[in-house]
Amino acid sequence: MSKQECVVLGQDGTDGCCPGLLTVPLDEDRAETLAKVFKALGDPVRLRLLSMIASRAGGEVCVCDLTPAFDLSQPTISHHLKLLKQAGLIDSERRGTWVYYRLLPETTDQLAAILTRPAGAPATEPAGAVI
Amino acid sequence: MSKQECVVLGQDGTDGCCPGLLTVPLDEDRAETLAKVFKALGDPVRLRLLSMIASRAGGEVCVCDLTPAFDLSQPTISHHLKLLKQAGLIDSERRGTWVYYRLLPETTDQLAAILTRPAGAPATEPAGAVI
Repeated sequence: MSKQECVVLGQDGTDGCCPGLLTVPLDEDRAETLAKVFKALGDPVRLRLLSMIASRAGGEVCVCDLTPAFDLSQPTISHHLKLLKQAGLIDSERRGTWVYYRLLPETTDQLAAILTRPAGAPATEPAGAVI
Repeated sequence: MSKQECVVLGQDGTDGCCPGLLTVPLDEDRAETLAKVFKALGDPVRLRLLSMIASRAGGEVCVCDLTPAFDLSQPTISHHLKLLKQAGLIDSERRGTWVYYRLLPETTDQLAAILTRPAGAPATEPAGAVI
């Protein structure tokens, strides 16, 4: 796999080509790319939207089913959804009047992989967990 | 495990007590808690600092070894480290002149777990990856 492909695909946890966040120091370019995705997750409304979309049976949700769950205007919800989409976390499709959203699981899979410690790392300590 | 313990410990991926982000819709309190941690990761300098700390052999890094890697002032680096610490991602210990930082792996383990799709979820699609 070329370096360029590593940057695009992120870390797959198998071939050592694209090491995770916890394995070797991130270079600046990769840190910029990853920070944008984490920043998109750094808002409680966006996290709830992502969670609602990801957990929906059938795999997609109409925006008309998302908005009523929040005490926020439709444009505000649409703005948050746009940020999630720009981060590569969700995709959307317009069908008739409504836009439908679905998870892009490859992005959350990659985030999970880069946050996973390499085999042989010290065991998790029981104290100090905050989430 | 009580609901309160779930909130504190997050999702452990084993007993179904504290479902992940992708399994059931997040409630508001948990979304607020998680968003703070993701927000701490949503900055390239903080991601690089966390990566430098996590990947250091021996498990801890003197702040005097972190600062030279950045074209930023010591107070700016200390501010970013403080935000990572407040998010529960790292801990610190002062010894003599210097402060030493280490990863709190329980937090990154929990983030990885909540971003992991439940067994039986559709396979990752090859297209569309962005990180």
